[in-house]
Amino acid sequence: MIKKMILEAKNIRPSREGFEVAGIFNPAVIRCGKETIMLARVAESAVQNDPDYFLVPVASAQGTIEIVRLPKNDPAYDYSDKRLVRNCQHTYLTSISHLRVARSMDGEHFVFDESGIILPGGIYERFGIEDPRITKIGSTYYVTFTAVSECGINVGLMATKDFRHFRRLGNILHSDNKDCVIFPKKIGGKYLALHRPSTSEFGKLDIWTAESPNLIDWGNHKIMTSARIDYLPCSRVGAGAVPMATAKGWLVVYHSADAANRYHLTAMLLDKNDPNIVLMRSKHPLVEPTETYEKKGFVDQVVFTCGLVADADQLCIYYGVCDQNIAMCTIPIRDVWDNMEAIGA
Amino acid sequence: MIKKMILEAKNIRPSREGFEVAGIFNPAVIRCGKETIMLARVAESAVQNDPDYFLVPVASAQGTIEIVRLPKNDPAYDYSDKRLVRNCQHTYLTSISHLRVARSMDGEHFVFDESGIILPGGIYERFGIEDPRITKIGSTYYVTFTAVSECGINVGLMATKDFRHFRRLGNILHSDNKDCVIFPKKIGGKYLALHRPSTSEFGKLDIWTAESPNLIDWGNHKIMTSARIDYLPCSRVGAGAVPMATAKGWLVVYHSADAANRYHLTAMLLDKNDPNIVLMRSKHPLVEPTETYEKKGFVDQVVFTCGLVADADQLCIYYGVCDQNIAMCTIPIRDVWDNMEAIGA
Repeated sequence: MIKKMILEAKNIRPSREGFEVAGIFNPAVIRCGKETIMLARVAESAVQNDPDYFLVPVASAQGTIEIVRLPKNDPAYDYSDKRLVRNCQHTYLTSISHLRVARSMDGEHFVFDESGIILPGGIYERFGIEDPRITKIGSTYYVTFTAVSECGINVGLMATKDFRHFRRLGNILHSDNKDCVIFPKKIGGKYLALHRPSTSEFGKLDIWTAESPNLIDWGNHKIMTSARIDYLPCSRVGAGAVPMATAKGWLVVYHSADAANRYHLTAMLLDKNDPNIVLMRSKHPLVEPTETYEKKGFVDQVVFTCGLVADADQLCIYYGVCDQNIAMCTIPIRDVWDNMEAIGA
Repeated sequence: MIKKMILEAKNIRPSREGFEVAGIFNPAVIRCGKETIMLARVAESAVQNDPDYFLVPVASAQGTIEIVRLPKNDPAYDYSDKRLVRNCQHTYLTSISHLRVARSMDGEHFVFDESGIILPGGIYERFGIEDPRITKIGSTYYVTFTAVSECGINVGLMATKDFRHFRRLGNILHSDNKDCVIFPKKIGGKYLALHRPSTSEFGKLDIWTAESPNLIDWGNHKIMTSARIDYLPCSRVGAGAVPMATAKGWLVVYHSADAANRYHLTAMLLDKNDPNIVLMRSKHPLVEPTETYEKKGFVDQVVFTCGLVADADQLCIYYGVCDQNIAMCTIPIRDVWDNMEAIGA
């Protein structure tokens, strides 16, 4: 396996004055002919230039970004988590994420489209849009994403044919839910998705499937695989890259985090005709934080994928590292299969 | 307004030996010709006859009820909430709910069908099925209900034509969600529902709308009304009875609970063509816990409706009291309207 960091937050230009880029990470990636197109999550925070107030960026209904000023020395505000500010009524994010389009001819060096910026807007995206996944169906690219706001964490859908014009198609899954990926074709006459509801009291952070006749309306929600407690002590799992059709079934690369929030990427093989059935899983993690840039950053020990590209003999996995930068790794397909074992084996 | 208690847990026969009825409450109700049909939630707990173990009933995949034995004196188990038993891994319910069919010719005296018992079964219903609502569409009665299990709190759907044979149609909304009611006809070419997701960090316990082409698959989730903080200090709201078509729009009776978990019922009027728009709301609570049987019970201060019947000049609201018994009240329609005020008034 070859790993390398390919995009760093420190080299990314903020979208506006008074802002700085806190991270570029968790990119969706799709191969379009000879080009590799990336939709990267860019998290920006306000430059903190007020001695008394902490500045929190929030998207307005009109599509502009406004600053909410929170008193720094008010004990009602909890600043202990650098990603969040809480008081007893509200939770804010310290940064706001948008999506940016980039293109590459070699899959490694990406150039950003000048006008390719998708900003959050409207009440479901007040705190940003995050973690996109791209699925091509027919001639349309469908992008699932996480929409964060005072309305919770919803899964939104947008569609594009050219990565220039994006059409919002509403919340396809209600709060709280994230890590939604849509399969690239109908199975048994229905579209299928993986998703990850957040449950409050009874459930665990598991991967679910849902079906849809039209990509907009989803039902028949089923739990798919439990949080790998049989495999590695783990607090949550979530779908990663869009499922990939292989001769053996659907190959899905997904993430798992342990109780200390150390992430790794792993793979599972789903039945071709009923992806609710897991046939095989990785014996050992596929990608773990081993490099310094995977271990230390805005959030330590995070490797998180939203997209991969498959060549004839290797997988090229793109992943966010430490909620800050983007890395990629290439793994021979043979190694991925050699690392799989049948469920129950 | 006339209130009366009509069904009491102490008079209800348990579904099996070794069980006792902890509550009959939160009934769905629908008028079918001259008959009023009720689908009541019956919560049963195991008779506690073991000095060392607390017995928790759990539905099996085969449709039987099994007993899980939890050590009473193990400090790993938290018995402080009489509805729940928790350890660091799991939450169990102390009772398990099923649904029971009852019929009445006067809307007040109900007789249970001998065979009209819908038991929980399968992995999404391990801890029971709760809080049904009945919507008639065409010649079919659709019943939404809350399915509780280690997979979280999901919204299930079943269909019946005769209240004898019920067909499960899967989870229509993923965990955690409850209080789902389906409108009795299509609006703008789509079916519509109200639902109440539970959000973990960012959201509040608000009422949402969703759309569907087929009652099975739901999308375009939108938040509808915030948790009435403008009206009465309140920690959550949730849809109650199935929306009722009136000349002025859709009338919805729903519940609201304050920070101390004291419930009341209240009403809102939704736009006829776009029920996401709230036109009017009750000025004062419609039903509050005033009677002893509404104030004291298994859970104090709870009035919770899942169904009403409208006559020409009055509403007959059926509601669970204190998660234990069933009451009904009749309110002149005129009083309901007199108590409404326009939003922003």
